[in-house]
Amino acid sequence: MQTTSISNILQKFIPENTKITVHGWIRTLRHSKAKISFLDLYDGSCLKTLQIVIGENLHNYKSEILHLTSGCSVTICGKIVKSIGNKQDIELVATNVTILGWIDQPNTYPITPKKHSLEYLRNVAHLRSRTHIFGAISRIRHILFQSMHNFMHKKGLLWIPTPIITAADTEGNSKMFYLSENFNNKNISNNISTNQVNGEQFFFGKKAFLTVSGQLNLETYACALSKVYTFGPTFRAEHSDTNRHLSEFWMLEVEIAFSKLNDIIELAKAFLTNMIQIVLEQCTPDITYCSNHSQCNLFKRLENFLNNKIAYIEYTDAINLLISCNKNFKNTVFWGGDLFSEHEKYLSEEYFKSPVIIMNYPKNIKAFYMRLNDDNKTVASMDILVPGIGEIIGGSQREERLNILKERLLENNLSNKYYWWYQDLRRYGTVPHSGFGLGFERLLIYITGITNIKDAIPFPRVFKNINF
Amino acid sequence: MQTTSISNILQKFIPENTKITVHGWIRTLRHSKAKISFLDLYDGSCLKTLQIVIGENLHNYKSEILHLTSGCSVTICGKIVKSIGNKQDIELVATNVTILGWIDQPNTYPITPKKHSLEYLRNVAHLRSRTHIFGAISRIRHILFQSMHNFMHKKGLLWIPTPIITAADTEGNSKMFYLSENFNNKNISNNISTNQVNGEQFFFGKKAFLTVSGQLNLETYACALSKVYTFGPTFRAEHSDTNRHLSEFWMLEVEIAFSKLNDIIELAKAFLTNMIQIVLEQCTPDITYCSNHSQCNLFKRLENFLNNKIAYIEYTDAINLLISCNKNFKNTVFWGGDLFSEHEKYLSEEYFKSPVIIMNYPKNIKAFYMRLNDDNKTVASMDILVPGIGEIIGGSQREERLNILKERLLENNLSNKYYWWYQDLRRYGTVPHSGFGLGFERLLIYITGITNIKDAIPFPRVFKNINF
Repeated sequence: MQTTSISNILQKFIPENTKITVHGWIRTLRHSKAKISFLDLYDGSCLKTLQIVIGENLHNYKSEILHLTSGCSVTICGKIVKSIGNKQDIELVATNVTILGWIDQPNTYPITPKKHSLEYLRNVAHLRSRTHIFGAISRIRHILFQSMHNFMHKKGLLWIPTPIITAADTEGNSKMFYLSENFNNKNISNNISTNQVNGEQFFFGKKAFLTVSGQLNLETYACALSKVYTFGPTFRAEHSDTNRHLSEFWMLEVEIAFSKLNDIIELAKAFLTNMIQIVLEQCTPDITYCSNHSQCNLFKRLENFLNNKIAYIEYTDAINLLISCNKNFKNTVFWGGDLFSEHEKYLSEEYFKSPVIIMNYPKNIKAFYMRLNDDNKTVASMDILVPGIGEIIGGSQREERLNILKERLLENNLSNKYYWWYQDLRRYGTVPHSGFGLGFERLLIYITGITNIKDAIPFPRVFKNINF
Repeated sequence: MQTTSISNILQKFIPENTKITVHGWIRTLRHSKAKISFLDLYDGSCLKTLQIVIGENLHNYKSEILHLTSGCSVTICGKIVKSIGNKQDIELVATNVTILGWIDQPNTYPITPKKHSLEYLRNVAHLRSRTHIFGAISRIRHILFQSMHNFMHKKGLLWIPTPIITAADTEGNSKMFYLSENFNNKNISNNISTNQVNGEQFFFGKKAFLTVSGQLNLETYACALSKVYTFGPTFRAEHSDTNRHLSEFWMLEVEIAFSKLNDIIELAKAFLTNMIQIVLEQCTPDITYCSNHSQCNLFKRLENFLNNKIAYIEYTDAINLLISCNKNFKNTVFWGGDLFSEHEKYLSEEYFKSPVIIMNYPKNIKAFYMRLNDDNKTVASMDILVPGIGEIIGGSQREERLNILKERLLENNLSNKYYWWYQDLRRYGTVPHSGFGLGFERLLIYITGITNIKDAIPFPRVFKNINF
């Protein structure tokens, strides 16, 4: 007699009277007057529960069955039968019940069968995976993760583990976490207050930080193996606690040699399309659940993405459009300024009513490594915005010309001392190359309708909060 | 005319005279007296290079072709023809050559076509991916990575991103990296030298560290979704610079609810077997190259793994065996002591001459979360050793009994203040569960024959070294 997951039991045709063993936790239960108990069992393999029927004979044998509560863990041996009720096709009639784990003081158990608010569940993040909504998010996250790697593999990209600890103190405006040895407090104060920043005191011989992007390291591999990507955690030390920011999040970064801006836009579009198609095909019950939970019609959202044409607009044209649209924006629109969320919202949700790709931003608001266009004012960059979320992907062609890269480093006050190796890629066999980055939790928010990014990652790390 | 990767050109039957465009870098080149040039082109998609033939007509048109050197990047349009030479089946006769990037001062270019030592290449880690050996390692790493996720997906495990930043200051004996905000030096000294450790000074409100393992967080998801795994970077702040240690490395961790020690051993064996089979099938040229490079017969090593039975031995029996074998070990063998590398070597390489699984170690040398056996002296743990490497996988059944877990935390001086949530998993619907961990670079070393782990990760982070 084999152990079977509930997903397998419910998905596959199993002949009546097949003997089966399942393990799981009780979602809900009721005891009838006729000494028959009905348990709804979950094991995380799918959204649906399996109905277990425990008859009088077992009750007589094991009186503690009556003390079971929601959350208890059990092993059930039994036979599959057609269900009489219309809530499910099949059910498991128990021939043996083993109680594995009780709920200590059931009235204090934080997870009850009723719907809890997401705010409440954040305080019990170690138990929230037991709810329907976090089960659904976890399964969708897994399918996205798996499909992402399959997509990259099929397109011939190699996974490269870029470093998390870095000596680059910045490549833009992001605040970074600083790393030191786990000295006891006395040592920290002694070492640092003397202000001897001579390298000896540092574990790595110099200051070390947590990475904000693996791109520069990834480029070294793109300039040797052509098509590469990285997927790993990245970090921001911003003092912001909003529903859009995490201090630790996962990022996909793609880098393709011998490619230009348009090539990378096509790849990014194909990637998003593929992810959405697969989720719609493989995660229908979980998307349905998330749709109801978020009161956002996710099928409509995702099918709109697939069916609508994606709009393209130059940054300069976007600025003109925003200036002439007579909307009262909080933030002034001007050429050379960054686009704010309200501007992006207007473009994708009101004007185009579709995903939109904004291209060729001014060089002054973009990173030093983006390729300077012939106008000497803009760089070969792109952001993909989607309705309801805003920016989901950002990318650019990289500056492959050594002399211009050097100028851009100077303009940005970035030191040759660190970037010598990055310049070497342009010194030796340079090639045009381009890449994009995608915040994985952003994509998950778009697909699940979750509105707070803290619910898109199992254990969110944010300013002033590092529980669990 | 489509761009094609060299791997596709060489693997697929392409009719003669097909027009093709390829991009790549020159590995080697020679110019014949008859004004014909032969370039060996690589693009990272496979080990082999594509021979490009440039005839007199093109030379007359583009005199700079004669100045090309190893490492230059080019785009070649041309026609596929059968090769006259016997070194390759086909070659590309160029109809157009576009030079994309030169080598600045070719005599200073750190990567020449001759074989460089791995030690030398570590100093040019930003360029070493351009060599045969690092290309081979990168492609094998990718196939391992991809196959690992496919294996987990097929077995029904969900990927869970466990946190990198953690408030757990230790769960064992590993030294950890301490995290702070990127204050400027003045602020660091001011803040820390006052010794006000009241939480206000910390970004997260309390001390934060880089994780040494995602297991405890992963268990929360196993106790809800049954089968889960995590794959991410982990960190050690040990002051050791050996060929077996990294400060930052990638770890696979698996956690399965309703499973016992033997179940997890079977899963770990199936995993290793599957990884080795796939690499042997899909990476033959790269394994061949690594085999020659390392002067270790990797096919023999890997086929031995597949063909030999894996030996099982209890820790207690292993100790008795090591005591009675009359070997002069440097480290004394006694019951209750850890096994050293020399002991593991003897067991797997001399005594069993096969992989060996050692089970049920004394509780005092293992982590608090391992399940106490009925003898009250040992825990339900296992290490898998392979010849040539030593330990490659470590795992255990986890302590699911709240009262015993509490005792073990006490014995290890671990605070309830942090571990309350971990105990909750045993308080509410506890289940037997087990898991294992595998150092990804360790597996890569085993499969590629590389002897220094610094060559198994693109940008190694080790004590006193954080270049690139």
